Amino acid sequence: MRVLGVDPGLTRCGVGVVDGVAGRPLAMRGVGVVRTPADAELGHRLVAIEQGIEQWLDEHDPEVLAVERVFSQHNVRTVMGTAQASAVAMLCASRRGIPVALHTPSEVKAAVTGSGRADKAQVGAMVTRLLRLDAPPKPADAADALALAICHIWRAPAQNRLQQAAALHASRTTPAQKGRTA
Amino acid sequence: MRVLGVDPGLTRCGVGVVDGVAGRPLAMRGVGVVRTPADAELGHRLVAIEQGIEQWLDEHDPEVLAVERVFSQHNVRTVMGTAQASAVAMLCASRRGIPVALHTPSEVKAAVTGSGRADKAQVGAMVTRLLRLDAPPKPADAADALALAICHIWRAPAQNRLQQAAALHASRTTPAQKGRTA
Repeated sequence: MRVLGVDPGLTRCGVGVVDGVAGRPLAMRGVGVVRTPADAELGHRLVAIEQGIEQWLDEHDPEVLAVERVFSQHNVRTVMGTAQASAVAMLCASRRGIPVALHTPSEVKAAVTGSGRADKAQVGAMVTRLLRLDAPPKPADAADALALAICHIWRAPAQNRLQQAAALHASRTTPAQKGRTA
Repeated sequence: MRVLGVDPGLTRCGVGVVDGVAGRPLAMRGVGVVRTPADAELGHRLVAIEQGIEQWLDEHDPEVLAVERVFSQHNVRTVMGTAQASAVAMLCASRRGIPVALHTPSEVKAAVTGSGRADKAQVGAMVTRLLRLDAPPKPADAADALALAICHIWRAPAQNRLQQAAALHASRTTPAQKGRTA
């Protein structure tokens, strides 16, 4: 499975491509950052992010786009930019029929470090080890994008089993039963 | 000036087209709502919004897109959807070279009702009167989109004068002076 991880942001959008399946060594295919100037108009920044993501999709042809699920506990201004940049990334993938998977920051940290509260340095160190790199990818947004891709590769089998079980349960449950349990 | 107003939202994106200049009667050219199913995947909803906005841009060829400036004092889930939908609308316009203008909800209310704290009914009533409609546009998102377009038509002259004054001031200020005043 080839996954394009995107750590969304208006100023820096981290992007990283990882090949792999759960239980086997992973391979990094690319890592980088899509940047837009902070003094440009918002609409132009969104166009620049679209162009950047399109290039990564063209070049690496991923099967899935994994993007950070945006929460609002962060700084308000940052959250808006993150939500807008992630919308553009999701739009680019969905337009091509590429599935989009969302993972929370703590799911990503837990997947690569074992702790949902790991810091940036720990995530960077584990990404470096898991992908057998010479040094942690810089900036941190690029490392986070790779961590998102790794998280998806490892979580996808369990998520698929859950979805299948839920679909099976739904197909076996009559509408009347659903009404009672809802 | 022809303005496409967009009241962004994932479930209902209000859209309204108004022709006019400040100080002259306004004319509505179109009003409607781009809807996406709440149970669809987020990426697919963003693609549907893109297709809807593109249709409105194709059909009405506006000179400006006016969109609500998203704030975070609202409900957290709603704000995320609003930010994502507005990102798609801004992207569609900017990609075509159409300028994007942002107005806050209170600026819009103040423009059409005289009060920044007017309620939905008051905004709907004034939009109906200003555009000489038979009844308030429904749903409220459609009326809000028209109010955004009207707000932009009326505020644009003042905004342009401010921008020109700021640009003139910046061109007359030397970098050293800027450093001291920053």
